[in-house]
Formats: sequence, structure tokens, C-alpha cells
Amino acid sequence: MKLLEERIKKDGIVLPGNVLKVDSFLNHQIDPELSKAMGEEFARLFGDAGIDRVLTVEASGIAIGVMTALTLHVPLVFARKKKSALINEPVYTHRVFSYTKKEYADILVLQKFLPAGENVLIIDDFLANGEAALGLAKLVEEAGSKVAGIGIAIEKAFQPGHQRLLDKGYHLEALASIASLEGGTIRFTAED
Amino acid sequence: MKLLEERIKKDGIVLPGNVLKVDSFLNHQIDPELSKAMGEEFARLFGDAGIDRVLTVEASGIAIGVMTALTLHVPLVFARKKKSALINEPVYTHRVFSYTKKEYADILVLQKFLPAGENVLIIDDFLANGEAALGLAKLVEEAGSKVAGIGIAIEKAFQPGHQRLLDKGYHLEALASIASLEGGTIRFTAED
Repeated sequence: MKLLEERIKKDGIVLPGNVLKVDSFLNHQIDPELSKAMGEEFARLFGDAGIDRVLTVEASGIAIGVMTALTLHVPLVFARKKKSALINEPVYTHRVFSYTKKEYADILVLQKFLPAGENVLIIDDFLANGEAALGLAKLVEEAGSKVAGIGIAIEKAFQPGHQRLLDKGYHLEALASIASLEGGTIRFTAED
Repeated sequence: MKLLEERIKKDGIVLPGNVLKVDSFLNHQIDPELSKAMGEEFARLFGDAGIDRVLTVEASGIAIGVMTALTLHVPLVFARKKKSALINEPVYTHRVFSYTKKEYADILVLQKFLPAGENVLIIDDFLANGEAALGLAKLVEEAGSKVAGIGIAIEKAFQPGHQRLLDKGYHLEALASIASLEGGTIRFTAED
């Protein structure tokens, strides 16, 4: 997605350790017009899959998730990252490791918000090691639904997540796919 | 806001202890059309205040916050609830108590995403004791900006937050204002 790649080139900051910071428009300060454009692009890419529901995880996935769900006219569900005092109903849950935060977190969704027999589109802001996306996919499958697709705003294609999702047979679409951050230079994978 | 009040009556669940659960459309499963309508209503209510930026707090404020920011053509910033390993830049931070979760959390915003001299609109999903809204207001004022308004999806007007915000002189607008949950019945405050 040209618009996103250009924004990453303009405002993305590369830090040591292959870290790409995009907190000026994607995951702390948010550009709502860009979020809307990304949601519309996800809806276009997965629109033929008969999506019943969009699933993301708090917090950075919510803005693009809600724009995707709005365009597809389906509900959004965001997985929570730990047990809230208010939740004492049956949940689907899975433990995922965050390489960014160097800690485990339990992601969970109330079972009533993941009915069986649906086509679920998973949306997230970043794909690196694939832990969050694979965890969300597990929740969907445990619920008896199908992962109809996984839409990622920015993937670091040189890290394991991309291949892990393809190996599982998922339909993966990344709006911006980064081939390398070496030397502090952002290089995108060549488009088809 | 009629649309929201009707949805609360239809899908809200009252639990013992004056708890109102709206997780089927507001803060776990999200109705994107309703989020958009709420964002447009906030934009209408505060549109004359020359808003430069919308500020909310993760996670439940993000969907309505991004819709508000989209309508107002300004950026959204969401405060994070604890220090991420990626953040090692100057932040504004304030400790707030969650009566729901019975725990303290530090909310924080990178200083570069709260510039001085702006009119900032604070958006959140719930107002009960006012801890989150007052904490966000403190961040704005510490940054040298003005709290141009506080927009809340659902306020429990019988709890202290409503009056605490008015006592500080803030322009408060709640899209649905609940007078009482006694006996499990949802009663809204009379409209002006």
C-alpha cells in the first residue's frame, strides 16, 4: 500500500535491534485518515471471503480494526491482554510472548463474542515473530470458526512471523512489507 | 444520544454493585457503526472549540476516539497504561486508580505527542469516579495545553466523576447519562 509505505519512509524511525518505531501515526499517536484508508484496503483485500467478524488485540490493532469492520459492516472484537476483574464468564485464552516487551501475556476473548461457524478476519498493526497473530488464530479455531485471513499493517518479512503464518496455510496480507532495516535504512520487499 | 441510550437499554447488562456491562457493543465487542455515530456526535458537540487533538486512553476509548478524530480532521493520541520497553523518551505521566480493576495504573503519553498551546478534546468510554478523565486532563495541562472538553460515551451520573469534572470547570458532555441502576433497571437522567 503506497500511502503506508510513504508514511513509513517519512515518519518511521529505525532503532538498533531491527526496531521500527511508527508511534507518530500508528500505535501511540494515530492518523485517523490513514487508519481509515488501511481499513478500506483490508476490506478490499478480504472482501470476497465472506467475513463475519474482525478480531484484533488491544491496543494498537483497534483503530485499524474498527475501520476495517466499519467498511465490511461486521462487528469488531478486540482480545484483552489480561483478565479484567469484570470478566467471570467463559473465555477463549492463549498465552503469547511479546518480544518487544519481553514478557508473556494472556490474550482472551469472551466465548460469546467468538461464535462457532464464522469466517473471522484477524487484523493487527505489526507482524514480527507472529506470536500475537498465531495466538488470535488459535482462539478462532478453538471457537470452531475459520481464520478467513490475517491482515497486518506492517510486517517485518525478515523475521519468522511471515513464514510461520504461511506454513499454517493462512491467507496473509501485509499493507507494508519490510525486507530489511539494516544500516538504519528501510527497504520494502519488491511488489509482485 | 438516543441511539446509544436505546442500545444500552437493549444490550446493557446490570450486575450487582452498580456495574453496567456494555461489552457487547462498546468495550470488547464493538459496533463500528455505533462508534462512528458517537464520534460524529462528539465532533458536533465540541466542533466549535477549535480542537487540535483528541486524547484517550487504551483500550476502550480508541474506537470512539479515532472516529471523533476522523470527523474533526485531527490526530488521535491514546495514553498507554504502563511503561512499554520501547519507550525511553520524555513522557507525561500520572497515576490513576481503577475502581473496576481495583488497582493503580500509570497512564503516560510521550511528550512529543502532547505539544503545548493546543486545544485538546478528551474522549473516554466510561465516567464513574472520574479517575481516568482527571488523569488525562492533568497530562494535557502539564503539557501546557488546554482541556477544550471531555466527551464520555456513558456516564454514571450518580457516582462522583460527573461532579468532580464540573467542579474543575471542564466542559463535559456524556452521550448517555445514567441516573440510577437500582433494582437492575437502567434509568437515564432527564434531558434538558
